[in-house]
Amino acid sequence: MAYSNRHNNNNSQSYAPSAPSFPGEQSPYTSAAAAAPNYYAHHSQSYPHGTTTTSSSNSAYGSYGQQYPPSSSSSEFPAGTHPDVIRSFQTVDRDRSGFIDEKELQQALSSTYHRFSLRTIRLLIFLFKNPNAPLTIGPKEFAALWTCLGQWQAIFQRYDKDRSGKIDSFELRDALYGIGYAIPASILQLLVSKYDDGSGRRVELNFDSFVECGLIVKGLTDKFKEKDRQYTGSATLSYDTFMSMVIPFLVSYN
Amino acid sequence: MAYSNRHNNNNSQSYAPSAPSFPGEQSPYTSAAAAAPNYYAHHSQSYPHGTTTTSSSNSAYGSYGQQYPPSSSSSEFPAGTHPDVIRSFQTVDRDRSGFIDEKELQQALSSTYHRFSLRTIRLLIFLFKNPNAPLTIGPKEFAALWTCLGQWQAIFQRYDKDRSGKIDSFELRDALYGIGYAIPASILQLLVSKYDDGSGRRVELNFDSFVECGLIVKGLTDKFKEKDRQYTGSATLSYDTFMSMVIPFLVSYN
Repeated sequence: MAYSNRHNNNNSQSYAPSAPSFPGEQSPYTSAAAAAPNYYAHHSQSYPHGTTTTSSSNSAYGSYGQQYPPSSSSSEFPAGTHPDVIRSFQTVDRDRSGFIDEKELQQALSSTYHRFSLRTIRLLIFLFKNPNAPLTIGPKEFAALWTCLGQWQAIFQRYDKDRSGKIDSFELRDALYGIGYAIPASILQLLVSKYDDGSGRRVELNFDSFVECGLIVKGLTDKFKEKDRQYTGSATLSYDTFMSMVIPFLVSYN
Repeated sequence: MAYSNRHNNNNSQSYAPSAPSFPGEQSPYTSAAAAAPNYYAHHSQSYPHGTTTTSSSNSAYGSYGQQYPPSSSSSEFPAGTHPDVIRSFQTVDRDRSGFIDEKELQQALSSTYHRFSLRTIRLLIFLFKNPNAPLTIGPKEFAALWTCLGQWQAIFQRYDKDRSGKIDSFELRDALYGIGYAIPASILQLLVSKYDDGSGRRVELNFDSFVECGLIVKGLTDKFKEKDRQYTGSATLSYDTFMSMVIPFLVSYN
């Protein structure tokens, strides 16, 4: 399938663990896109995922990830948030403003996850922040982001079999499938080519780059799906809409 | 207008200087998009360009830029190519392969134009290279790229009135208009926000960032126009097409 986000994206709290469905199989988190029979079926048949993806992940998916009940305010942590998450946030929010910026988010994630590049940090903020707020992250968004990274890290580690801290393009395909997106081979090739350093060596992605890829695929796919409410696999866009959808994913200062 | 590339893009040699047209005015280089009456007129009316743009640029436009006649082979410089351009290429093409890579292109442009970031260099290569060739630049593409940069540099310098080497967002709007693209204020704001360093200072762009912005606007607009042959201002895209259009403009390794 060209896109299939099996997460329910209606609420940023809902990065629930979801088993990569077999074609025709529908998990509790299968989105309407994945369920749309024609488009889904057509693309699923052509998606060459290996048995590794499906056999190993079904068992692993249930073991991590906690659903937080929705919170009515973005200035509070959702009930049930792990104390470590709250502590990570509060440690970097020194002025107790209740919001953290990109440098603070980078610091907050560095001990548990990774010291992400500012480029990835900005994508995280862009995709998780309250749409009506400036470029900062509050407790509610932080909790959602933390949960998402936990799931993505587990998936990354599953495919990084030799624990080298890197995955190749085939593993990236399966890992993106694991986080809910089955992208066509041509798109995957384009994406991976952006990480090619021209040395002739096989492209390998570290966790930072994997998260960046995941955020790009997730972000663009979700944006596109907003314009394809019937999940037909195509959408009519005005030039202004197209540019507005795309530019946030582009350059940022070094 | 939402997009208006007044250059003839059918041939990479044709980055001809073009005066920013007034609404209804049509330069010899006005593209079919700019000439499409309804869409063009609608957006032109809402484009708040200042008198500076039009009064200063009409006189300046005719003074630079040389049209090269089309060449039948990309492995040769077009007839009439300035010897300095050929020398710049040959100096960096040490193995005389007839093609230069990103590092060599960066070096070739550094003395005359700017030592561009590799991010901008990659965009230049992506947009100017022969679509059927790998990520390298041959003589024909180099000549076209050189001419384009000459024109963009002249436009940048025109708006960099205090010769600080930087332009602000209003000047960027006029400068993008100068190179053939009138983009809506909301899109411009999004684009400029990517260069905001969060310091609260007014965003200013150096020549490198201006070229990057120009390439992004040019690249995305031209891609979109390919899907909007009737120049209606909207296009129907499949998910795969959308992703293929966008991903080349995204991240590349650091």
